[in-house]
Amino acid sequence: MTTPIRKIYVPGTLYPDLRVPMAEVHVSGEVPLTMYDSSGPYTDPQGGTDVNRGLPPLRASWIEGRGDTDPYPGRTVLPIDNGFAAGAALAPEFPHRRVPRRARAGAVTQLAYARAGRITPEMEFVAIREAQRRAAVRRDGTPPGTTSPGEVTPEFVRAEIAAGRAILPANINHPELEPMIIGRNFLVKINANMGTSAVTSSMEEEVEKMVWAIRWGADTVMDLSTGRNIHTTREWILRNAPVPVGTVPLYQALEKVGGVAEELSWDIFRDTLIEQAEQGVDYFTIHAGVRRHMVPLTATRVTGIVSRGGSIMAKWCIEHDRESFLYDRFEEICDICRTYDVAFSLGDGLRPGSIADTNDAAQFAELETLGELTRVAWAKDCQVMVEGPGHVPMHKIRENMDKQLECCHEAPFYTLGPLTTDIAPGYDHITSAIGAAMIGWYGCAMLCYVTPKEHLGLPDRDDVRTGVITYKIAAHAADLAKGHPGAQARDDALSRARFEFRWEDQFNLSLDPDTARAMHDETLPKAAHKAAKFCSMCGPKFCSMRISQDIRDAARQAEPAE
Amino acid sequence: MTTPIRKIYVPGTLYPDLRVPMAEVHVSGEVPLTMYDSSGPYTDPQGGTDVNRGLPPLRASWIEGRGDTDPYPGRTVLPIDNGFAAGAALAPEFPHRRVPRRARAGAVTQLAYARAGRITPEMEFVAIREAQRRAAVRRDGTPPGTTSPGEVTPEFVRAEIAAGRAILPANINHPELEPMIIGRNFLVKINANMGTSAVTSSMEEEVEKMVWAIRWGADTVMDLSTGRNIHTTREWILRNAPVPVGTVPLYQALEKVGGVAEELSWDIFRDTLIEQAEQGVDYFTIHAGVRRHMVPLTATRVTGIVSRGGSIMAKWCIEHDRESFLYDRFEEICDICRTYDVAFSLGDGLRPGSIADTNDAAQFAELETLGELTRVAWAKDCQVMVEGPGHVPMHKIRENMDKQLECCHEAPFYTLGPLTTDIAPGYDHITSAIGAAMIGWYGCAMLCYVTPKEHLGLPDRDDVRTGVITYKIAAHAADLAKGHPGAQARDDALSRARFEFRWEDQFNLSLDPDTARAMHDETLPKAAHKAAKFCSMCGPKFCSMRISQDIRDAARQAEPAE
Repeated sequence: MTTPIRKIYVPGTLYPDLRVPMAEVHVSGEVPLTMYDSSGPYTDPQGGTDVNRGLPPLRASWIEGRGDTDPYPGRTVLPIDNGFAAGAALAPEFPHRRVPRRARAGAVTQLAYARAGRITPEMEFVAIREAQRRAAVRRDGTPPGTTSPGEVTPEFVRAEIAAGRAILPANINHPELEPMIIGRNFLVKINANMGTSAVTSSMEEEVEKMVWAIRWGADTVMDLSTGRNIHTTREWILRNAPVPVGTVPLYQALEKVGGVAEELSWDIFRDTLIEQAEQGVDYFTIHAGVRRHMVPLTATRVTGIVSRGGSIMAKWCIEHDRESFLYDRFEEICDICRTYDVAFSLGDGLRPGSIADTNDAAQFAELETLGELTRVAWAKDCQVMVEGPGHVPMHKIRENMDKQLECCHEAPFYTLGPLTTDIAPGYDHITSAIGAAMIGWYGCAMLCYVTPKEHLGLPDRDDVRTGVITYKIAAHAADLAKGHPGAQARDDALSRARFEFRWEDQFNLSLDPDTARAMHDETLPKAAHKAAKFCSMCGPKFCSMRISQDIRDAARQAEPAE
Repeated sequence: MTTPIRKIYVPGTLYPDLRVPMAEVHVSGEVPLTMYDSSGPYTDPQGGTDVNRGLPPLRASWIEGRGDTDPYPGRTVLPIDNGFAAGAALAPEFPHRRVPRRARAGAVTQLAYARAGRITPEMEFVAIREAQRRAAVRRDGTPPGTTSPGEVTPEFVRAEIAAGRAILPANINHPELEPMIIGRNFLVKINANMGTSAVTSSMEEEVEKMVWAIRWGADTVMDLSTGRNIHTTREWILRNAPVPVGTVPLYQALEKVGGVAEELSWDIFRDTLIEQAEQGVDYFTIHAGVRRHMVPLTATRVTGIVSRGGSIMAKWCIEHDRESFLYDRFEEICDICRTYDVAFSLGDGLRPGSIADTNDAAQFAELETLGELTRVAWAKDCQVMVEGPGHVPMHKIRENMDKQLECCHEAPFYTLGPLTTDIAPGYDHITSAIGAAMIGWYGCAMLCYVTPKEHLGLPDRDDVRTGVITYKIAAHAADLAKGHPGAQARDDALSRARFEFRWEDQFNLSLDPDTARAMHDETLPKAAHKAAKFCSMCGPKFCSMRISQDIRDAARQAEPAE
């Protein structure tokens, strides 16, 4: 019996030692279909993963080989980093201590290399990964303002990064990373948020959450943990993460000052950035766009400031009656980021939290500042993406994308949804998937998932799966609408299987084979039904697909042989 | 304790005896919000519904009062109408036999009345219903080609029906109906399909399926039952349905010829139309657009013909090598429909069943024929809507809507989804909600729901609820984007409740209060948490909403008194 979905590794050309992971689906009577695969070594039967050992550092030799970084002792981990957790509440440390590296001088970012004309192993890796070994069939999508070629080459990847239109988040201290790219001329990516629960769970469980999210297709994860053991949890996740890990350093900094926003300081924040950069965080959400003078613009909103980072910084500005230290110290933040290649995700602290507040003065004022900060970061050779809303009705989505491209000089956009209505708590994965698919089509590069529990509670495993699959749908619908080369191959293969009643092929080609198979089993549970030339919806008598095949056969017989 | 959601009835002005049902939501500290309510007397504590008695015939006096119809004995129900079910397999008849009515002469359709300048009670009913007792706040939506006024008046309703831009499906033999309207200058509507299972269920259960779907917001239901007891099941549903009921008469006709498409005849079909019209079916899906010469256009498709009706008619045409009898006899079909006011839902038998087949020659050839048939039906004073796809990637949706408006002279469009990708069986409510929301914004008047089981099996109760709520989301997102007067009032009320931590208000204003409440309970189960000024996502320390309120309070205190 053939294994229906098999892990394969594609070698490089510029760098022959590259092993780019993909999933190959066996399809009866057709050539196998290759699929993008973010799930890491966990889905490789030969993967031999061990959460206590961490993943192999596949990038280590590339990073060392560049000769522009050095190992150094790094910052000492302090009790405050884990919220002074002690005794039984103290989580066990990750068993192997990594020695951090930093730039010998200047920037060691993928942007700096790209600008210098260098194609790194990371760049070739993502070029191979994006191409999915498919013929570069370009469909008739209408990508607004995109410049995607028929084929994704390493040089195209380099050029997109150099232009600032794409980022390759890859901290030099995260050698376990399988490189990926975020930019509107590539496949649309999705992020899944996670975080420790209030109830202390084991470190294995925290790693398992990440593994679960990437199994279903999350391209990056954000660790939004709060409370105790925040440093240790992050270490366990990073050492086991084949995808980029993002954080909001402000959350940990706030923990360090006991949750009192006005007690935040540049020193504490700076120290937290270094702490996280040394661990290997690949991108930082920095809410430097929330400036003192913008806060009053939110006073007449229906839902005020709904971003946690935004409200913390607004509170700080008001209490101190001063400009945000994140804005004032932004160049210094860049100096840290370029030392480790931590990409920026410029946070939208003033994003709208309701349909009523969409596209208002506060939101767009911040967006302009984010554009200004993009230029500052680029001048330091830092990689930048820009975060976006939030809650936006359909007819105002395009304006968000267009304004972002203009204000932020085509830096990649990374949005939360947007939710297209406020009236469906419990279903906000759906209210937001509508907006996410649309903004992905319009050019948004990465979509932050929303689970059914949004606004209501903490997502469990099922919610995470539902959120990830829903966002894979939005991202793929966007790839189709953009005419991304090769994107339609999977739809076509699945539809051919559907038309020919190849049920197993349908399941294997789908985003969630387990769910599809289980639903089919509910009505037609027998194994024989998986070969039946009908389904439970119409039953054997009425099947339109079978009648349609009869018609086709009749038409073919009626034709003279060519 | 105040009942949070209360059923109210609004009287008419032209017709003071009208009692237009609405749901009124109690909102703490605000005026109550009125909501559109399709659930019928079942949600009225004073409703006194009894499935064995049926609903009160609220339209009976309006219909009789017009003096243009007569009762008559009607067609005798034959064993073949119920698939020759006998003995234990024969379902019990509905206990009360209704005497059918028919037109004395000519057309007794809402279109005929509208053209004659008459505002019927049905028209005033829907005008009141659409307005939802809300201030006609027009938002800044961008409805392509719509002409919606700030206020929905009975005269506006009449004019839209007269112009053919809206239909009011209301068979004179369905007096239990609470009138509703389908047109792009009104609220976007949704339909839920139902049908008997292969396993014989009780008639109460069949009625319960319909009641369940309208409880969550289905505006119409289609009874797509096959097999035995089809006539009796329909009678039970109609006598208990406060919403329009649609059918595909071809399905029953096919049952009558033993499932062999080529044995269908005009006589059998005609008799089935009369059978169903006398029972009170409000709209018929008629696949008259599938013509002989179009069938070969589907031969090179990936998924051929996926419409059951389409494939049946294609098979008939091929086997007989003749033009479709539905097309040939279309004027005679119109003569039946005008006698009872059965609206047409012109079926799209050649809709695409995959992304690969979207917007192809077969699909658009049929659409042109549907436009031709629209004119024929209008000449007979018949009401018409037109069915649409199916599977369409986002960038090809707009073309569907624009072409339909053009080819079909602005008759209302009624689409299935469309699904924006083929790769997510098990999640096709979501792949299609994306397309449904978009086409609703572009001007589609009614959206046929898709459940998670689409392509896989028969939906159960949970699937029906999920499908209906998902489509209410799509419809409402479209109403917002169209700037439908008053649509945003509910979003605003819910968002204010969210910002002020009025959890119970949030639940009551949401599309599915039960699910929202249950999800909140999972993390914060105590009653006291429903009054907590935080939620489980951030916890008490981090709450951005509370910080935001603090900021607002500070800003207000800092302002000089006006």
